[in-house]
Amino acid sequence: MKIAVLGGDGYLGWPTALHLSAQGHDILVVDNFARRQYDFELGAESLVPIRSLKQRVDKWREISGRTIEIMAGDLTDPEFTYEMVRKFTPEAVVHFAEQRAAPYSMIDRSHAVYTQVNNVVGTLNLLYAIAEIDPEIHLVKLGTMGEYGTPNIDIEEGFIEITHKGRTDVLPFPKQPGSFYHLSKVHDSHNIMFATKAWNLRSTDLNQGVVYGQETEETAMHSDLATRLDYDAVFGTVLNRFIVQATIGHPITVYGTGDQTRGMLDIRDTLQCIHLAIKNPAQPGEYRVFNQFTESFSISQLANLVSETFPGHVTVEMLDNPRTEALSHYYNAVHTKLLDLGLQPHLLSDTLISSLFGVVEQHKDRVDLDVMRPSVQWRKTSSPVREEKVAK
Amino acid sequence: MKIAVLGGDGYLGWPTALHLSAQGHDILVVDNFARRQYDFELGAESLVPIRSLKQRVDKWREISGRTIEIMAGDLTDPEFTYEMVRKFTPEAVVHFAEQRAAPYSMIDRSHAVYTQVNNVVGTLNLLYAIAEIDPEIHLVKLGTMGEYGTPNIDIEEGFIEITHKGRTDVLPFPKQPGSFYHLSKVHDSHNIMFATKAWNLRSTDLNQGVVYGQETEETAMHSDLATRLDYDAVFGTVLNRFIVQATIGHPITVYGTGDQTRGMLDIRDTLQCIHLAIKNPAQPGEYRVFNQFTESFSISQLANLVSETFPGHVTVEMLDNPRTEALSHYYNAVHTKLLDLGLQPHLLSDTLISSLFGVVEQHKDRVDLDVMRPSVQWRKTSSPVREEKVAK
Repeated sequence: MKIAVLGGDGYLGWPTALHLSAQGHDILVVDNFARRQYDFELGAESLVPIRSLKQRVDKWREISGRTIEIMAGDLTDPEFTYEMVRKFTPEAVVHFAEQRAAPYSMIDRSHAVYTQVNNVVGTLNLLYAIAEIDPEIHLVKLGTMGEYGTPNIDIEEGFIEITHKGRTDVLPFPKQPGSFYHLSKVHDSHNIMFATKAWNLRSTDLNQGVVYGQETEETAMHSDLATRLDYDAVFGTVLNRFIVQATIGHPITVYGTGDQTRGMLDIRDTLQCIHLAIKNPAQPGEYRVFNQFTESFSISQLANLVSETFPGHVTVEMLDNPRTEALSHYYNAVHTKLLDLGLQPHLLSDTLISSLFGVVEQHKDRVDLDVMRPSVQWRKTSSPVREEKVAK
Repeated sequence: MKIAVLGGDGYLGWPTALHLSAQGHDILVVDNFARRQYDFELGAESLVPIRSLKQRVDKWREISGRTIEIMAGDLTDPEFTYEMVRKFTPEAVVHFAEQRAAPYSMIDRSHAVYTQVNNVVGTLNLLYAIAEIDPEIHLVKLGTMGEYGTPNIDIEEGFIEITHKGRTDVLPFPKQPGSFYHLSKVHDSHNIMFATKAWNLRSTDLNQGVVYGQETEETAMHSDLATRLDYDAVFGTVLNRFIVQATIGHPITVYGTGDQTRGMLDIRDTLQCIHLAIKNPAQPGEYRVFNQFTESFSISQLANLVSETFPGHVTVEMLDNPRTEALSHYYNAVHTKLLDLGLQPHLLSDTLISSLFGVVEQHKDRVDLDVMRPSVQWRKTSSPVREEKVAK
């Protein structure tokens, strides 16, 4: 199958492209390299050194004999987006090509506006290109579990049956996103739902949990195939960040009480889920939502797990929560649709954590302590990033 | 009170500015004149001739002795938005300054993107300006009843109590908007709800029904104070359009079966509702939603009402529905919060319809038949506006 992986140079996009290529699909990677640009802006970088997209693709051809095509461009440019769909003629499009960090979107007004315009306009252009060029293309779009927030009822997969004043309907699950990034994904979801119905498209919205891990079967084949590992306070996600902190002897930084609970999954399960969605496409006119995570943990549970597994002393530091999220809350989210399609979860284990300790140990001289402190405050409307560094 | 009326040169913005000025408030009108620009683009114009904003404000000063300030600029320009809030120091901001026509947003990709970027970014800039300059400012934002779509349950005012699997929560009412314009309002609502909570703002979201009528107490004082009356298929709203059609002997154009039901209100009640919202501001940290309409009608009911009231023969023409809306559907929307604050509705009457016949009769030589046919198709992704005219 011909599959375009948009944002295919990123943390998850790259291993997804490799995995789908290894399964025998013809892959086009599309990227505007915004993620590498954010590193320059923030003065941060991947803990694990990564190669350029060209070098990665060359190495993959050398190792696997398989070719991954590249198109450099930006989805907010409609001419590029239409040209990409027309030239490559994909049967499925996996869409990772969005600004993905909540803290980045909360830096200040201009980052909030950038995040929403970039994500919403890129997806709108893609929807129009699919509708006008080939409505049969299956859109597999990455959303986030953060779209739902933390309601005091069970979270369903996209839709919920509501009985109200004696009448019943199945309606979109109410959304309570907690940052301008999460809001951008809610906007996308509404836009995709509408366009799918109006133009009879096929679309799958994957509301993904927090991903941990760094190695996949394919990236592990050669160091030139490695994907990025972010540990900074802006792009680093929680478990990966804790493991880096433990390894370098830095306190594990827990925001607030640590009672916040989130759905999580192993990076290898991201690839599995996307492959399952592609193998079992949405029907024409169908907008479906899968909750893409395998287990739920509280932040404290994760901190404890890392402490217990690390072969040395670990301290935990409780910081004022920079976010405006509920600390003690109910959390139970349904996630059966991908299991029904055959997902075999890699549950979080000591082994996984230990293997991450190994990866981090190998590169720990690359850690920059400055980038680990949360500098973005949800309650303040302007949070100059790395102010202290600029002032030096 | 110092009140900024954003979009104060438009159909509802201008009469609102006059009404609040007449009540003794100090008014700033902010506008980028986008609405006048759409007329040039579409080759359409207001049936009732309207004066420039400068001329309107001059006439109002002459008649009432009261000054309305003007600032020309665009909310998507953050420097302008911040400067406006800093210089005028409003206590309340009434925000009409958005692209407001569903058909306009559905013309093609570029109009969809324009509508969403214009509306979402303008509102984001305004939220940041309020938060950073004076979080006490009460934001009164115009939304639309179209955000809810037509669920098979009663529509509540913004939030709904849901009991699910034995647990209960009050959550945002699920949204099913039916155009990229309506989607932009849903995006705004989510952004405002989040910002209000994160930054402790005061905000009121007025989900307005379809407005009819053209004269208000203040605009009726002089022809130079008139507000626009749109009858074209892109910007004309349903009842106003039917009255123009009847008056010029054109068939009344009903889309689909005409069973679509919508909440509606008299233009004078728009002014009353906004005044009530301002007099009774939201509390710090409160995001509240009022459903702003007074009665519900099906499209066929409106067509019949116009036929019965018109003193002559009227034909009704059923057109294929260009939209992707449900034709037969349940519709019962709660709208008690504004009544509780003291709203005295002007219910739709023969008198109102007759008075509109009078307004239209006076200007019927200005009608351009070409602009009354729906040229924008929801199911097609590109609908060249007035193609036939360009081809002539």
